[in-house]
Amino acid sequence: MSEHTPSADSSDPESVVEQYEQQLEDVLAEVETETPRDDEDGLAVELAGLELDRRDFIKAGAVAGAMSATAGCAGGILDNGGSGTSSPKAASSKPDHLVPPGEHDEYYGFWSGGHSGEIRVLGIPSMRELTRIPVFNTEGARGYGYDDQTSEMLEEAGDYTWGDNHHPNLSETGGDYDGEYLFVNDKANGRIARVNLKYFETDAITDVPNVQSVHGTTVLSPDTKYVFGNGEFRTPLPNDGRDVHNPEKYTSLFSAVDPDSMETKWQVKVDGNLDICDSGKEGRWVISSAYNSEEAVGIKGMTHDDRDFVKAFDIPAIEKAVEQGTYEEVNGVPVVDGTKSSSLNSGDRPIVKYIPTPKSPHCVEVEPNGKYAMIAGKLSPTVTILDLQKLGEVSDPAKAVVGRPKVGLGPLHTTFDGNGHAYTSLFIDSQVAKWDIQKAIEAEKGSEDPVLEKIDVHYNPGHIQALEAMTTDPDGEWLVSLNKLSKDRFLPVGPIHPDNDQLIHIGQGEKEMELVADHPAYPEPHDCVFAHRDKLDPATTWDREDYAGEKPYISEKQSGVERTGEQRVHVKSSVKRSEYGLQEFTVKEGDEVRLTLTNIEDVRDVIHGVAIPEHDVNLAIAPQDTREVTFTADEPGVYWVYCTYFCSALHLEMRSRMIVEPRD
Amino acid sequence: MSEHTPSADSSDPESVVEQYEQQLEDVLAEVETETPRDDEDGLAVELAGLELDRRDFIKAGAVAGAMSATAGCAGGILDNGGSGTSSPKAASSKPDHLVPPGEHDEYYGFWSGGHSGEIRVLGIPSMRELTRIPVFNTEGARGYGYDDQTSEMLEEAGDYTWGDNHHPNLSETGGDYDGEYLFVNDKANGRIARVNLKYFETDAITDVPNVQSVHGTTVLSPDTKYVFGNGEFRTPLPNDGRDVHNPEKYTSLFSAVDPDSMETKWQVKVDGNLDICDSGKEGRWVISSAYNSEEAVGIKGMTHDDRDFVKAFDIPAIEKAVEQGTYEEVNGVPVVDGTKSSSLNSGDRPIVKYIPTPKSPHCVEVEPNGKYAMIAGKLSPTVTILDLQKLGEVSDPAKAVVGRPKVGLGPLHTTFDGNGHAYTSLFIDSQVAKWDIQKAIEAEKGSEDPVLEKIDVHYNPGHIQALEAMTTDPDGEWLVSLNKLSKDRFLPVGPIHPDNDQLIHIGQGEKEMELVADHPAYPEPHDCVFAHRDKLDPATTWDREDYAGEKPYISEKQSGVERTGEQRVHVKSSVKRSEYGLQEFTVKEGDEVRLTLTNIEDVRDVIHGVAIPEHDVNLAIAPQDTREVTFTADEPGVYWVYCTYFCSALHLEMRSRMIVEPRD
Repeated sequence: MSEHTPSADSSDPESVVEQYEQQLEDVLAEVETETPRDDEDGLAVELAGLELDRRDFIKAGAVAGAMSATAGCAGGILDNGGSGTSSPKAASSKPDHLVPPGEHDEYYGFWSGGHSGEIRVLGIPSMRELTRIPVFNTEGARGYGYDDQTSEMLEEAGDYTWGDNHHPNLSETGGDYDGEYLFVNDKANGRIARVNLKYFETDAITDVPNVQSVHGTTVLSPDTKYVFGNGEFRTPLPNDGRDVHNPEKYTSLFSAVDPDSMETKWQVKVDGNLDICDSGKEGRWVISSAYNSEEAVGIKGMTHDDRDFVKAFDIPAIEKAVEQGTYEEVNGVPVVDGTKSSSLNSGDRPIVKYIPTPKSPHCVEVEPNGKYAMIAGKLSPTVTILDLQKLGEVSDPAKAVVGRPKVGLGPLHTTFDGNGHAYTSLFIDSQVAKWDIQKAIEAEKGSEDPVLEKIDVHYNPGHIQALEAMTTDPDGEWLVSLNKLSKDRFLPVGPIHPDNDQLIHIGQGEKEMELVADHPAYPEPHDCVFAHRDKLDPATTWDREDYAGEKPYISEKQSGVERTGEQRVHVKSSVKRSEYGLQEFTVKEGDEVRLTLTNIEDVRDVIHGVAIPEHDVNLAIAPQDTREVTFTADEPGVYWVYCTYFCSALHLEMRSRMIVEPRD
Repeated sequence: MSEHTPSADSSDPESVVEQYEQQLEDVLAEVETETPRDDEDGLAVELAGLELDRRDFIKAGAVAGAMSATAGCAGGILDNGGSGTSSPKAASSKPDHLVPPGEHDEYYGFWSGGHSGEIRVLGIPSMRELTRIPVFNTEGARGYGYDDQTSEMLEEAGDYTWGDNHHPNLSETGGDYDGEYLFVNDKANGRIARVNLKYFETDAITDVPNVQSVHGTTVLSPDTKYVFGNGEFRTPLPNDGRDVHNPEKYTSLFSAVDPDSMETKWQVKVDGNLDICDSGKEGRWVISSAYNSEEAVGIKGMTHDDRDFVKAFDIPAIEKAVEQGTYEEVNGVPVVDGTKSSSLNSGDRPIVKYIPTPKSPHCVEVEPNGKYAMIAGKLSPTVTILDLQKLGEVSDPAKAVVGRPKVGLGPLHTTFDGNGHAYTSLFIDSQVAKWDIQKAIEAEKGSEDPVLEKIDVHYNPGHIQALEAMTTDPDGEWLVSLNKLSKDRFLPVGPIHPDNDQLIHIGQGEKEMELVADHPAYPEPHDCVFAHRDKLDPATTWDREDYAGEKPYISEKQSGVERTGEQRVHVKSSVKRSEYGLQEFTVKEGDEVRLTLTNIEDVRDVIHGVAIPEHDVNLAIAPQDTREVTFTADEPGVYWVYCTYFCSALHLEMRSRMIVEPRD
């Protein structure tokens, strides 16, 4: 254990607090920060029935430096690489994370790509990236955003060229992953996208009305009745220029999207900024973390008070309010009032319960049994344990808090192994803490420290995920810590560093965590979710039925050019290895060209591409798939259409010649 | 050795040919092909002084099926996974390719990204992707194509949203990598880009005039005097609508680009389509493979004749012609006539020598000593060895061919280990053949078969690269085979499969090739180049001097808003952990907003992002860097500027508020 790490088995809570306090002082002494520290008044606040000293909070003013990712790096004292509680080297006693050539990984990992806008699919435990799925970005290799269908989808969803996806969620049936869809948010533009897991392709994007930023996202367990999105940023409602200077009128919304139609069915207006959410297992509760109960517009105001309020959305109660018409319609969506003072929150069954927690909690994860929601403290070194059963029973939501273990500095996210253990990432400590859920609850009555083990990670972890931790039956074994910074862990690649996703073996016992592999990750893999390979069944070629009626299927014989207007032609072509059905076609300068191509092969992995130089045309067509693109042939000349997927030894010679004749 | 593989140590050339012939028959019997086969007339052709039977060529008509990537897969007979000449499993006797947590790879690998438009940087031998460098694509994670500077660069280079980069080349000084730049082609739009290896960022893109598609690319050894680009597609010159129906007037050009100014200095017009090129080591020769001497416009015509002509560009001779004004200027570039019939090719020192080879050769690689260029046969099972010393001496270029070893079906690319061995990828055989260069030359006089060993790869390899194989002093040890298809090697991810880059240990001896790891690769990693880590010295923060005069440096005190016109404002802000220098700013509806931000931190790996919802604004600013973006605030409302790089525990609260007031 490195010098600065608080003792995990200390049984004196006061001494633990003092250690944190001292550590914070040390950090502050080391880092440059121009912000004066508040005085330490030691004021104890009564919070959720538990005594927490004011020293348990990290001051907002000091936090910019103290909690910064590189504070430790600069000062040296948090830079604990290689000196952790567990060995950072791979050991042969663990199951091999290497997957030999030709063998398959056991799990799919779906990584959000952050502001790259994509989803990444990794094999676990090898950590090899199997593919990328462009979602909010256009992408050349798959021709995504280039064919008419995907480019129109992106255009209709706001016509942005990027997105910021944070939280991938797999669809569920009967509480287990059904392998149908993955849903992910766009924090940058308030959108939710759906990825079809038959084709590993984004098939729908919805621009959620009235919301500027969708952050936390979850599906409603057990049957994906809704996909929920937390509107993080508070804005005027609607945000059309009114009330811009009246922050007290800003609001944030919790949105329920239908997973089939992708329509927003209803929204709930709440106090404060919504952050991350997770669903209970029973279809009733969705718990959202939240910050800025102060409803301030600057960082000091946002972190002024010592408490914030996690929101528990009672889904059936909200549905009832919508059904009864107790809402205001804004931009076509029923908006239900879920603010603290709303009449809908005053009766026996409030639609939103406000649970007090230490200020600015970061994440909510519901453990596999669906009994408890874990709320990581971020600015408090604790995790708040919320009993979902009690939540439905007590009138004071604070009474549903059944534990608040101290886990370390900067707790952000919690994951589970199915053996009664929780693992919480510690952003400031650059560690993962493993703790016993039951002991943490009992600890409130004076029993032993629930923290079993800590392991150093490198550096500053955000989300962590263990195998199928979000299901009712996690598989344990491996955990991935998504660390925000890699600093010196890899060969240098210029000023923009990769993140570092570390693979940790978590074993079955109490003290078995072992760092196995570092994995550089292109910014910013925000979160991930794992599914056993048996739960997915992707197609290897296209089913023509899936686009019948929308797009034609062009055989070799149907290849040809049809003039459909004075300045409009429809070019149709099959494509197979080495050969386009149409090896040349002539259009007139200024023609709008609709190009329809079908890959007539039915052999797995024989993709064909369609590139037209100087026209920004770029399609990727999988076997039995048809893609269309419409463009203008605005410059006369000869243009060589070529295949971008190396499909045969005569791939290089595979060409179609587009002749654009001068108009006169 | 699997059943279908021709015996590597057969000493009877006729029996080898018969085996290929039989194999081809088997393949054809298995695959669906509608193209009737030509008859086998057995006509022997005198070619470069060597007897080659017509059976050594694969028929163009049959090739679409026979040489297709999945022919073997469909028929089962090429599907030789796991039954190769060497074990496909990792063995403990080789140096470990795993790089333990916290340790660094020994080599950088730069991968072209094909039609993804990017460069990928891998660590070797771990094969971990360290970062991506967007080149021809826009990319959200790095804000590339979003700040004014990079978006203007892309716009000026043709305003395309993608590119197809194939051949990454590192700059050289004194014949060794100097770590300054990487150059890469765009096959889709006739461009060449330069990546600055101090910052791992694309800093220049040039749209090469008169050229539709730049394919092969190389720098002139030993000092990067030029970057050369092979114009692959034959078009009218200029391609402005003239001669569109007269293919005999189409031409292809070899272009010389200045690596500093990125201007095209001169071009050489040649017969046929240019393919791939490599530089000799002495600054005189650049050898280009070429196909379609027939100058046909369809695939049958392109592969009709039994021979093609590799081009040897004599750079000093071309420079002299330019100097003497023996050129035609087209779109501002001197175009020298290097066609076979040109008067510049009739004297003692022709500017381009035409070396006959079996038809449609694919690639040229010059071995480390600079003595020989290896030209892989593609449709012929041979590699043609060209003696560069002799090339300068003989009047008949065919006499410079000193060997033509038979290596297997579909030879595409050759790499080197510095120990006298060459390794050639066999696209159809799905193998890599290791052969002895000296023996191959001697074999012409009747000595033993130069092929030492073959290893199965999975499947259908294109480029292969061994460590620093393109330098005068390769490091051997590891070789990567970039296989076009992965078929069943990984967990399925829908109809668009990853490629498969396989890591092979090549040892020092004659029969030591061993497959160590499969590495799925997002389409399409076309080629790669490796450099020892000691040869690069990337910056970890920005040098302000590198943008002084172009962009300001905004300190905290300089943060503010300045109205610069009736509908124009300049917003300036510093940014550091948790805090923008400007925490709110107000503009008017319709204003053009110029936003300038400086990351005032100087700590490695503390990047800050700038996202403005619903405005497609997205910057990534490394320490000490300044970025600018100009956009229009066209809709009134409140917009929350936020940071996309997780920089501190208060990252989530890090915000600036953009208020867009209604204009009246």
